[in-house]
Amino acid sequence: MYTVSQLSDIINSKISEMKYPEAPAGLYAPIQYTLEGGGKRLRPVLALAVCSALGCRLDKVINQALGIEIFHNFTLLHDDVMDNADTRRGRPTVHRRWDIPTAILSGDAMLTMATQYIADVDDDKLKSEAIALFNKTAMEIYEGQQYDMDFESRTDVNVNEYMNMIRLKTSVLIGCACEMGALMAGASENIRKSFYRYGEKLGLAFQLQDDYLDTYGDPLKFGKQIGGDILNDKKTWLLISAIEQDETDETRSLIGSGVLPETKIKRMKAVYGRLNLSTKCHELIEKFVNEAISIVEHLVIDDDAKSFFINLARKSATRDH
Amino acid sequence: MYTVSQLSDIINSKISEMKYPEAPAGLYAPIQYTLEGGGKRLRPVLALAVCSALGCRLDKVINQALGIEIFHNFTLLHDDVMDNADTRRGRPTVHRRWDIPTAILSGDAMLTMATQYIADVDDDKLKSEAIALFNKTAMEIYEGQQYDMDFESRTDVNVNEYMNMIRLKTSVLIGCACEMGALMAGASENIRKSFYRYGEKLGLAFQLQDDYLDTYGDPLKFGKQIGGDILNDKKTWLLISAIEQDETDETRSLIGSGVLPETKIKRMKAVYGRLNLSTKCHELIEKFVNEAISIVEHLVIDDDAKSFFINLARKSATRDH
Repeated sequence: MYTVSQLSDIINSKISEMKYPEAPAGLYAPIQYTLEGGGKRLRPVLALAVCSALGCRLDKVINQALGIEIFHNFTLLHDDVMDNADTRRGRPTVHRRWDIPTAILSGDAMLTMATQYIADVDDDKLKSEAIALFNKTAMEIYEGQQYDMDFESRTDVNVNEYMNMIRLKTSVLIGCACEMGALMAGASENIRKSFYRYGEKLGLAFQLQDDYLDTYGDPLKFGKQIGGDILNDKKTWLLISAIEQDETDETRSLIGSGVLPETKIKRMKAVYGRLNLSTKCHELIEKFVNEAISIVEHLVIDDDAKSFFINLARKSATRDH
Repeated sequence: MYTVSQLSDIINSKISEMKYPEAPAGLYAPIQYTLEGGGKRLRPVLALAVCSALGCRLDKVINQALGIEIFHNFTLLHDDVMDNADTRRGRPTVHRRWDIPTAILSGDAMLTMATQYIADVDDDKLKSEAIALFNKTAMEIYEGQQYDMDFESRTDVNVNEYMNMIRLKTSVLIGCACEMGALMAGASENIRKSFYRYGEKLGLAFQLQDDYLDTYGDPLKFGKQIGGDILNDKKTWLLISAIEQDETDETRSLIGSGVLPETKIKRMKAVYGRLNLSTKCHELIEKFVNEAISIVEHLVIDDDAKSFFINLARKSATRDH
């Protein structure tokens, strides 16, 4: 079995080898800039790993793995415009480095490119199934992004709605990547769906850990300012749980308040502490990690492949960056 | 053979019957608003007409026809954001009626929806070919839009570059719609390419007529303010030809100048008149119409089908709105 870093190296080298038409540079340069900007490559790594765990060569799924990574980067590019974000992975976002029309158009082209990579398989039946899985997932992700934007102006979001939002916005693409690896390896519907559910659980654990680290992470390791979500009143699992459970006025009075940043973070963390939310968040992450691991343990794959997926799930709950 | 209005009625009724998920409304309401906003439905009408002319039932290509119309409306939606346009078909654009994030995300979803409609065919081989044609065309259209945006800040655009830009931005999708009709009817590569070239010529005539009407149209019939392109220094065939051919300083001095709108339009039209550009533009439109007609005349299809495509080509050169 390959290691995560071997697989992400393969993805990075394929991305750096991609050829772009020379003109119009205004369309293709931002695509190259976006794709070569790094990132964990978690989704394509999973597609490759599943395919390999099922005994198939990586080239069976490499195009679809790249298509999913291009799609993921397209969503980040357009989300950054929607969220008016200045930086991404330590560099200016595309709409800051170029402009908004460039960011919109390059993103559109990335979505079509992604579809071309997904469809780049000789077998017409497999192609058909890969495209159906990909398009269905894409629609769910747009729904997730829409819910996320809707939540910004809502004060009555509950934890179930939040979990559904992060499932759509984050988990389904990770599930799709895992299922794509199984699909291209010619696996049965049953195995495909097991890997999808593994990816989905992993994605939920991953996103909750992201929320957790934004409040409780080590600023040196996390790479972002700690407490950003609290300062922006971002509707995370922690904040929504606090709104639901805090019987005092403290949580609601802090939202949208003009208190100093340091004070706001300190007081909100005090609420979270009083409600034991840090521990409960970690218990929830553990629950999803254990569910992901249980799915893998029931699969008929080599032990070292099992270890790969189990370790990845464990790491998503313990990672500090 | 059906009439254009029968075919566009079929498209309009299919569009009005489309079902959208109830939630999230912020994602689906702008899509419905965009698709139900009318328009000529030229592209899906052509896809249906070609399929019918080749002896096939319309339901063979209806999904792909709708996919192309959804794609076309997606490009208009995103172009309106890029161009900062306030109105489209007499109504506020999506980013004015809602906001820019909504317009970006709904457009993204329309692109994926379009791909789903294109891929909605039982035969896996046909599906594969339909998707390849569609994705290739989509990439060309993004390139056309990029060139169009690049031209805004350039003063050295020549007529060849302009013709290539409108081919990419407008004609290839009309060619794609025609070829899609032939593809889904099971036609040979030769017939498919003939219909593609017919659509491409029609598209060039159509776009040049659009440029022509913006300067020489009847304001009551055209539905837009006449002279808008001149006031915005839009790099149309007329302006680029004037820049190339005007040996006086008049054209260059008018571009970006602060003269009164009425005066600017009058003086630019005087340049066009002196260079005989109105006539030359019409001759060029006639050339493309005749090329389109010649392609159709060489096809082995019923006479009334031939008449349909010939009349449509003639109309694109003589239409006043």
